[in-house]
Amino acid sequence: MENALPDIRTLFEPESIAIIGASHSPNKIGYRIVENIIGSGFPGRIFPVNPRGGELLGLHVYGSLEDIRDEIDLAILVIPAKLAFQAVKDCARKKVRILVVITSGFSEVGNFEEEREMVSYARRHGMRVLGPNIFGIYSSVAPVNATFGPGEVAEGNVALITQSGAIGVAMFGKTRIENIGLSAVVSVGNKSDIDEADLLEYLGEHEGTRVILMYIEGIKNGEKLVTALKKITPRKPVIVIKSGSSKRGAVAAASHTGSLAGADEIFSDVMKQCGVLRAKSIQEALVWCKYLSTAPLPKGENAVIITNGGGLGVLAADACEKYGVNLYDDLETLDTTFSGVVPEFGSVKNPIDLTGPATFGDYEDAVGAAIDNDDIHSMICLGCQTAFFNGRELERSISAMHERASGKKPLTFSFLGGSMIEDSTRKLKLSGIPVFSDVYEAISCFGALYSVYRNRSHGMSPDAGLNCVSRADVGTDMNEDMDLRTMELVVQHARADGRTFLLANEAADLMNAAGIRMPAAKVARNLQECIDAATEIGYPVVMKVVSRDIIHKSDAGGVALNLENRQEVMDAYQAIIHSCKRYRPDARIEGIEVSEMILKGLETIIGARRDRAFGPIVMFGLGGIYVEVMKDVAFRALPVNNGEVRSMIKQIRSYPLLLGVRGERKKDVDGIADTIMRIGSIIREIDSISDIEINPLVVYKEGKGCLALDARILLTSSTRC
Amino acid sequence: MENALPDIRTLFEPESIAIIGASHSPNKIGYRIVENIIGSGFPGRIFPVNPRGGELLGLHVYGSLEDIRDEIDLAILVIPAKLAFQAVKDCARKKVRILVVITSGFSEVGNFEEEREMVSYARRHGMRVLGPNIFGIYSSVAPVNATFGPGEVAEGNVALITQSGAIGVAMFGKTRIENIGLSAVVSVGNKSDIDEADLLEYLGEHEGTRVILMYIEGIKNGEKLVTALKKITPRKPVIVIKSGSSKRGAVAAASHTGSLAGADEIFSDVMKQCGVLRAKSIQEALVWCKYLSTAPLPKGENAVIITNGGGLGVLAADACEKYGVNLYDDLETLDTTFSGVVPEFGSVKNPIDLTGPATFGDYEDAVGAAIDNDDIHSMICLGCQTAFFNGRELERSISAMHERASGKKPLTFSFLGGSMIEDSTRKLKLSGIPVFSDVYEAISCFGALYSVYRNRSHGMSPDAGLNCVSRADVGTDMNEDMDLRTMELVVQHARADGRTFLLANEAADLMNAAGIRMPAAKVARNLQECIDAATEIGYPVVMKVVSRDIIHKSDAGGVALNLENRQEVMDAYQAIIHSCKRYRPDARIEGIEVSEMILKGLETIIGARRDRAFGPIVMFGLGGIYVEVMKDVAFRALPVNNGEVRSMIKQIRSYPLLLGVRGERKKDVDGIADTIMRIGSIIREIDSISDIEINPLVVYKEGKGCLALDARILLTSSTRC
Repeated sequence: MENALPDIRTLFEPESIAIIGASHSPNKIGYRIVENIIGSGFPGRIFPVNPRGGELLGLHVYGSLEDIRDEIDLAILVIPAKLAFQAVKDCARKKVRILVVITSGFSEVGNFEEEREMVSYARRHGMRVLGPNIFGIYSSVAPVNATFGPGEVAEGNVALITQSGAIGVAMFGKTRIENIGLSAVVSVGNKSDIDEADLLEYLGEHEGTRVILMYIEGIKNGEKLVTALKKITPRKPVIVIKSGSSKRGAVAAASHTGSLAGADEIFSDVMKQCGVLRAKSIQEALVWCKYLSTAPLPKGENAVIITNGGGLGVLAADACEKYGVNLYDDLETLDTTFSGVVPEFGSVKNPIDLTGPATFGDYEDAVGAAIDNDDIHSMICLGCQTAFFNGRELERSISAMHERASGKKPLTFSFLGGSMIEDSTRKLKLSGIPVFSDVYEAISCFGALYSVYRNRSHGMSPDAGLNCVSRADVGTDMNEDMDLRTMELVVQHARADGRTFLLANEAADLMNAAGIRMPAAKVARNLQECIDAATEIGYPVVMKVVSRDIIHKSDAGGVALNLENRQEVMDAYQAIIHSCKRYRPDARIEGIEVSEMILKGLETIIGARRDRAFGPIVMFGLGGIYVEVMKDVAFRALPVNNGEVRSMIKQIRSYPLLLGVRGERKKDVDGIADTIMRIGSIIREIDSISDIEINPLVVYKEGKGCLALDARILLTSSTRC
Repeated sequence: MENALPDIRTLFEPESIAIIGASHSPNKIGYRIVENIIGSGFPGRIFPVNPRGGELLGLHVYGSLEDIRDEIDLAILVIPAKLAFQAVKDCARKKVRILVVITSGFSEVGNFEEEREMVSYARRHGMRVLGPNIFGIYSSVAPVNATFGPGEVAEGNVALITQSGAIGVAMFGKTRIENIGLSAVVSVGNKSDIDEADLLEYLGEHEGTRVILMYIEGIKNGEKLVTALKKITPRKPVIVIKSGSSKRGAVAAASHTGSLAGADEIFSDVMKQCGVLRAKSIQEALVWCKYLSTAPLPKGENAVIITNGGGLGVLAADACEKYGVNLYDDLETLDTTFSGVVPEFGSVKNPIDLTGPATFGDYEDAVGAAIDNDDIHSMICLGCQTAFFNGRELERSISAMHERASGKKPLTFSFLGGSMIEDSTRKLKLSGIPVFSDVYEAISCFGALYSVYRNRSHGMSPDAGLNCVSRADVGTDMNEDMDLRTMELVVQHARADGRTFLLANEAADLMNAAGIRMPAAKVARNLQECIDAATEIGYPVVMKVVSRDIIHKSDAGGVALNLENRQEVMDAYQAIIHSCKRYRPDARIEGIEVSEMILKGLETIIGARRDRAFGPIVMFGLGGIYVEVMKDVAFRALPVNNGEVRSMIKQIRSYPLLLGVRGERKKDVDGIADTIMRIGSIIREIDSISDIEINPLVVYKEGKGCLALDARILLTSSTRC
């Protein structure tokens, strides 16, 4: 009997709003919200609701929801927690579309049960819920400011989504100082129903939104978020501030794969996978927002620094390396372009050094030359204050250069000096020109811009990068040669046995069904069976006596290694039987195990598990010490495509080992990627598997594949298999 | 016939100044400097010199130096480069003490020769030289502003030393905006004579200087700088901005040890060793300067965060971890201290959360409680703007809290919000209270403060840290058991042979003389000699046939491993002789090499070389891949003491391997430190050795020492041995 849920668009573009708990007292939130809605020029109908009735800010106050005859898109609840559920029921009767529950006192203080029931009730009755424990929503589309935050909002193209009410309100105010215009501000609070992913769905389509800033404390439905982020970042930059990156804040994850790295490393990697820009501080996030909300995207990677001082140029080059900005270095083109505008002791190499006596005319010539050259895609224009500078000239010249580059190529300025520079910078900033007091900050913005450029240009998936795999190519689908039925049977059998782990042979069966190669082995009962087994497995092989009476097989002469052909197998068979009989005459020999001889290769670890935040994730690192001591691992959320897996493999610091060092051959990276995709498929398809770890996965040279020496597979403790 | 050089004090506290090239034209540097000297209220005598004579800004202009009858402390040269040397000669005749050579056109444009000659001439005649290619010097002591930078200087306690004139002048201006008072500004330019180390010598003693900021592009005499820095940082913070950290700027070092890491990694490590704070940007450096110039040092490590919002508290805790600020976590004390001031849904765990409705009274109570508790050493007070805030209250309350903590404990503020917060923050900042707009920036300053605290409290050497070795304990002196004479003879012999490297046996002899253990080996000519050799070397041993006729010793049965006693040596002797004779009856057997059996241990690499910037340095890393691929190495400049070496060893990411992982025993870190000290001594004492690399140095469990398996020693190509 569920009703269809309303579109999230209604939240941003309501036509009518009821405020349940509207207050006559100007100190109350219930007053402030009504005041803000009116003040924002909301053109729809506003229905304050309060049993006391009367009039509020010129509006009729309704005694109850029932008294309202019109339809209600949004109902904003600003009543005590204990009254909230009843109000939700009233709203359901009134067929309200979306509930904006300002009220706090739910899951954030341990009151999970009531929140769950209330939200479940609302959804069953066709309503969606924002909150509880929020400060409201602002949308420039309606327009409506249904928050108890600041009354005056500068309209613009940045959308702000915040999990913390306190930080949200404060940032709301802060954006105004930083001259950042807003298209939307949404407080998501406890995320009982509507979460970031729902909002991204709308904001991705919303023309008035160019940049999205999210403050996140914790993730509830990571898979949904990842899907939404992957969809939006090729079109719009998403900047995230995430608190809790330190140990003190991070929750220790239970399984082994998780214990390798705190949850923050996983968060970081998954954001990278999704093309999200992660800011280290609120300030950095706001600076990026401001910059990305106006700067044009470059058409290519070739950036040029133009400076009047070598020192500043070098500082800028350092920052470019750090922030992934590529300095153009075609010396011939640079010479042709700039030799006419650079004086004797200057430099036409990048950074272009106009030297100390440079005038603004010189700057304009150099910037002009860069704009006119199609091989140059972006410019950073720097300067130290000199005697040749004066404020009016500086402002005029920068405005002119900005104007000339406008819409064509990104051009960013940073000047260092005293009050003259500072005053001019302030004025220019106010007129929307990107002028920074600090070179480093300027280039951090440039780096963010280039990340956005790469997100957009690399066929959607930021991770796909050079592999040109579009994000539409969602991987980790079951490979045709994987035998799902057999895998499920193995798991069911372990379950029936009451176990939450697979035995070694079960794990081997599962790996085999998944197309992941483990060392082949067979128990033979006579010489002919040994020869047949060796032929089947392929030489070289190892032979070992199987006897419960012989514990130390080697001491008994019960082991033969590296047997390369039929003759050696025959000799070994005789030798083993003979030695074992002599070692312990009464030993019962059950057979001889013939197994693949394991060749030396590079040891890696791959894993998959269910992350608390992101659901199924995969992990990759180099064997043993690299993972355990150096923490040199990379994570990705599922599903992953081939490009994402390759970017994950490349991300580890020890990646050069896979390419081959000291004259070694390149390792079989394809094989690693294939194995990761396969274990990703397993954990995605078989719900009852909680952890897979292949340790080690021995990797051979290119074309020679990988071999999983050991596979540990854990099952979820639930019985929903 | 050299004259005694004047004290550097004269540069900062001159009593008379001549300006050679004083100009009547207000656009000229030669005018501007005279104007600035007069404007700065310099109380000494000022002698403008210009052949045209006349009067300048009320002063008599002298036609030449000879016309001046008084003594001259500083002569400032603002004349073209081609006239400079003659002026230097005139100054020598006049017995000028210090030359301040503003003039450019010397080594910075490739004119090395003239600069070298001019400076050498000056020094021979008892004069020291600042510059050339500088903008001058400002000193608050004289006071004198002998620069062509800004005329108005705010006096204060920050000294600025800059290698770049352009950046220096610009920062000079920038400090004024940032409200940073200056005690000195020195432009060092080409550092032909006076360098940062000379200036630190004076500034370390100068009471009016509390913080030193240096902008460095390159290092000329690193050993001198390291000595000066080690001396000053336990008393005063030194902040460094170094350009050229990126590959594009870094010069590829020639030797292997150098090629492992760009020069920037070495610079970074050496600055760490010296207790220097390295800022990543000019902005960060200035913010630290400002903060450190006023904040009191904490008396201990226990920091407390007080906030009105959980989110902000978590962001702050994240930043604390990043910047090395230790959050106090004695739950009992925290509870006792704060339970009276924290409301129901707040937290008395650190961060202390006063919750959203907190008033300034609540903040004052909490901060007061922290000030009164001797176990709490520092406080970070944070807030998100709420309805309970108003500007006047905020300013009053912050001022009151600041006043109360003043001189007792560091207390830093950061509030996030709109224009009200911004306006109040600006006002409070102007009155010298540390209030930051960004939490992250506030805590970066707190981290810098704690670095300074640790420099001061850890018995001088920042690196010594927990080992409590005072910096006075200068290590790397020749150990008593090292035989310098033998080492020198080995080197002389190789030199005489025309080589720039040591042969394997020479390197082994040198290592032996240095007390660094290499595998022992002896060639024995008969059974008795074999037994004697094995007894001398110690069991287990390895025996190998020595015969130019037998190339593949193993194939010939000419090798016996792991011989544990006299009987096994006797058996092996017979077996080797027998097998070799059978393998090749006509083989001439010259003897049997008896050598130490090398046991498995952890492979490390240690090295020493002469760095272009810092002179002799040592290097440490884990073997092979760790150094080559993971770049997991640490460097220190010599001399080093034991504490510094231990800090160097601890610095590598793979350090846990030395402590023992997976139940392994701790490795012999003492042995590693001892070996590093020894190779440090070698390279310090023997000038003609340019490189030493022990690779691998096998390290055994604690108490079992190390074994150098291979030592590669290179000699300088010069013949000054």
